[in-house]
Amino acid sequence: MSFIRNAWYMAAWGHEVGDTPFGRKICGEPIVFYRDRATGKIAALQDRCCHRGAALSLGEVNDKGLACGYHGLVFDCSGRCVHVPGQDKIPAKLQVPRFEVEERDEIIWVWIGDPDKADRAKILPYPYHNDRARWPHRTHVYHVKAKYELLIENLMDLTHLAYVHKTTIGGNAQAHVEAKMTVERKENGLHFVRWLPNSQPPATYIKAVGFQGRVDRWMDFEFVAPGNVVQWTGALDVGRGAEQNRLQEGGFSLRILHSLTPETENTCFYFWSAANGYRQHDPSATDQLYDQIHTAFQEDKVMIEAQQAALDATGGEAGLVDIASDAARVHMRRTLTRLAEEGNAA
Amino acid sequence: MSFIRNAWYMAAWGHEVGDTPFGRKICGEPIVFYRDRATGKIAALQDRCCHRGAALSLGEVNDKGLACGYHGLVFDCSGRCVHVPGQDKIPAKLQVPRFEVEERDEIIWVWIGDPDKADRAKILPYPYHNDRARWPHRTHVYHVKAKYELLIENLMDLTHLAYVHKTTIGGNAQAHVEAKMTVERKENGLHFVRWLPNSQPPATYIKAVGFQGRVDRWMDFEFVAPGNVVQWTGALDVGRGAEQNRLQEGGFSLRILHSLTPETENTCFYFWSAANGYRQHDPSATDQLYDQIHTAFQEDKVMIEAQQAALDATGGEAGLVDIASDAARVHMRRTLTRLAEEGNAA
Amino acid sequence: MSFIRNAWYMAAWGHEVGDTPFGRKICGEPIVFYRDRATGKIAALQDRCCHRGAALSLGEVNDKGLACGYHGLVFDCSGRCVHVPGQDKIPAKLQVPRFEVEERDEIIWVWIGDPDKADRAKILPYPYHNDRARWPHRTHVYHVKAKYELLIENLMDLTHLAYVHKTTIGGNAQAHVEAKMTVERKENGLHFVRWLPNSQPPATYIKAVGFQGRVDRWMDFEFVAPGNVVQWTGALDVGRGAEQNRLQEGGFSLRILHSLTPETENTCFYFWSAANGYRQHDPSATDQLYDQIHTAFQEDKVMIEAQQAALDATGGEAGLVDIASDAARVHMRRTLTRLAEEGNAA
Repeated sequence: MSFIRNAWYMAAWGHEVGDTPFGRKICGEPIVFYRDRATGKIAALQDRCCHRGAALSLGEVNDKGLACGYHGLVFDCSGRCVHVPGQDKIPAKLQVPRFEVEERDEIIWVWIGDPDKADRAKILPYPYHNDRARWPHRTHVYHVKAKYELLIENLMDLTHLAYVHKTTIGGNAQAHVEAKMTVERKENGLHFVRWLPNSQPPATYIKAVGFQGRVDRWMDFEFVAPGNVVQWTGALDVGRGAEQNRLQEGGFSLRILHSLTPETENTCFYFWSAANGYRQHDPSATDQLYDQIHTAFQEDKVMIEAQQAALDATGGEAGLVDIASDAARVHMRRTLTRLAEEGNAA
Repeated sequence: MSFIRNAWYMAAWGHEVGDTPFGRKICGEPIVFYRDRATGKIAALQDRCCHRGAALSLGEVNDKGLACGYHGLVFDCSGRCVHVPGQDKIPAKLQVPRFEVEERDEIIWVWIGDPDKADRAKILPYPYHNDRARWPHRTHVYHVKAKYELLIENLMDLTHLAYVHKTTIGGNAQAHVEAKMTVERKENGLHFVRWLPNSQPPATYIKAVGFQGRVDRWMDFEFVAPGNVVQWTGALDVGRGAEQNRLQEGGFSLRILHSLTPETENTCFYFWSAANGYRQHDPSATDQLYDQIHTAFQEDKVMIEAQQAALDATGGEAGLVDIASDAARVHMRRTLTRLAEEGNAA
Repeated sequence: MSFIRNAWYMAAWGHEVGDTPFGRKICGEPIVFYRDRATGKIAALQDRCCHRGAALSLGEVNDKGLACGYHGLVFDCSGRCVHVPGQDKIPAKLQVPRFEVEERDEIIWVWIGDPDKADRAKILPYPYHNDRARWPHRTHVYHVKAKYELLIENLMDLTHLAYVHKTTIGGNAQAHVEAKMTVERKENGLHFVRWLPNSQPPATYIKAVGFQGRVDRWMDFEFVAPGNVVQWTGALDVGRGAEQNRLQEGGFSLRILHSLTPETENTCFYFWSAANGYRQHDPSATDQLYDQIHTAFQEDKVMIEAQQAALDATGGEAGLVDIASDAARVHMRRTLTRLAEEGNAA
């Protein structure tokens, strides 16, 4: 298996790791996450006791660290064994591999590769999670039977909205095709903005903020390799100068974080949060947004799992042909290929 | 995987392909079948969009052809792309592989191999499906976890009736063993007829046509490689000269089409139809026949899936020993081996 | 796959093989067990008819032997074909491989390897099953998704009781760690006894025999390679000299037979019986013991299946570190390694 290992991946939502240890496989590595009792900080260790290989995620957290549920050995946040029942001397080699880990913005990030290269400054910032008054939000995670790249590429070509989400969030196919799109390449990703100027707002937008007429509508997507797509979608009444300033009162806007993390070569986790930026004082608006996004993303899941199966049955991507709407996707794939090569070279 | 590719396989019942595309894997190839709106004709394409590999079977049929459900590309019956949303010029290489396909006698046949060799004159004719007054019938299809050859060989040795179908359609073991059997070898198959002269009719036969005494009973099976077995079973009162002319009033007769199609190396589809040739004006007779056959064939399915598992666990067929009743089966297997070799040589 | 083949494995409880044949895979070999009608003796054949490979376990037992459910061939206890329907001459090569098998003490034992080496004197004796008045008991079998060795090693290190069975049969962690343990190595196994002298009896012991104060408590385990662990657990009031003579009136004692048998490289069967040696005239005491053991062993199953998965995900046992409580386990693994090497050398 070959993964981009020197990278920060979203491993879990912060609330997934409570008083008990939590196991999840990331890039083929079984990892146990637990919250240190004294500090509240998250630790990430290999989910395999170095004594007999038991899954540490079946253990429990105590004051000294994480206790294996099989024979009671305890490991601290660094993976060092600090207690062996009935044994005073603890051999130094009783050590479980540890992973760099960081919790911020309600997200637990993990670094699978070389710990010395784990630069915390490179973790994707997502400050909206910390401003619940301005951006009330809800979160979810799916297990998807497909390579994570296929889910990112789904987000790089929004013409799919008109087909996959025809009856949900899709809207008018022609409008999506005619959108004005600007793409900016970045060192480890890309940023594109699509504008649907002077267009009919979707029914959900009208319901949300009471638009009376046509709107300028935008879809702003930033891909940050390897697994993140930061989305900001919204609309303002025509004539209010949305392209110059999107942040005006009375507009519609929502933010979605998509974070894709490989579990194995052919499966991944799809983390997402949806933030209501238009009727913040109405919890039912946040819930409705969540329900609508959940319905739409399940449509993506069905399509992409079938795509993976079709690729598997036909020997992979050989012979596929790019079309005009693939520009962002192609750059995204090149970025991932480059990062993989850099990792192999290192 | 090695399949006999230059051959017509039953791919579906005609009624399985309606207004929406229909996906099925045949000989390891994922195939989408759809019915052209203008002509009503069936098309068969690789079930993988040539753009990003999406499963075309999740798409929809429109006036131009089959539209991919992911990004809206449309393909005609030949697999040529005829529409790319938002793009005027369509590159010639946007082309999905197509398979030769033919619908007749309620059956959709597909040719997996070299299209130039797809001779439609070699499709098995089954005219009984077109005469619903004389042969009212019902159809079914099973997915079976076994090589398709094992299901054909099940039909080549009818002594299994007395064991597998002991409590259903089996009847008397001794009668089956003592049946007079003639086997005629054919270019791509064989034809055998078994007679149980002057025998006690099964209870279902008596119920069906009111036999008062003993009957001459026949089982007429034709194997047409690679996957078809055409069965005609019946009985007439002793003394009416059944061996000279089976088609007399007041007799019992039914026809079963068995068509076996590889899905993968070790799984297949078992298509069958059962036609009531004895009480045609009574729909409940057709239904009873269907129920009875369904019950019996499920018994076969259990036996053959366990046979496949036993062979898998013991290294295959090495060391198996033929017995007297294997004559037809041995010829059947030789025919398949010859066809496979011819395909490899070509 | 590499198994210790020249060994007796528990294949089934005697009551699992009744009037119909019974199939089970042992060391990768599909085996059918049936009870000869005339003698009542158990026969063990390869579960694959030598005619077409059908699973003989789908057949039925008749007066001549085991009849294949597919085409009716009959095999005697030696695997020789004694009947082919409709065929007078039976070729000598119509022969199904047979396994050495022995039923005793309610257990069916099978020998997978060289029949000439199958010494019945080496079958583990378990006479307690034959004394239902003294040792009323109940039995069970689990299918476990783990190598059988992992389940044996679970029994070689009883410190796990305090962690895996914390809320069931575990009791005090400190007491288990401080137990006095003597280990005796044997030719094909080992025998250890752990004493918890002058200790507080568990609640279930008090309930069972009415202990008023502290007890001397023992755990006596004998490992007999490759798959058996014979357990005798009990307690006597302090001062009655339990270490000299455990078999006194008014004590508490129970016997458990654990027998682990590989199904495949990574799955096994866990047979166990639990015998009530303290309130023999009370069937509800036997039932309570059974329920308690069943609950505890399911805890082991969860832990060990997760251990197997963790080992699989991390390349096996490389890098694991032994601790003080592993002494018996290490000798057990060495015994299995030696037996495997002897088998390979032979």
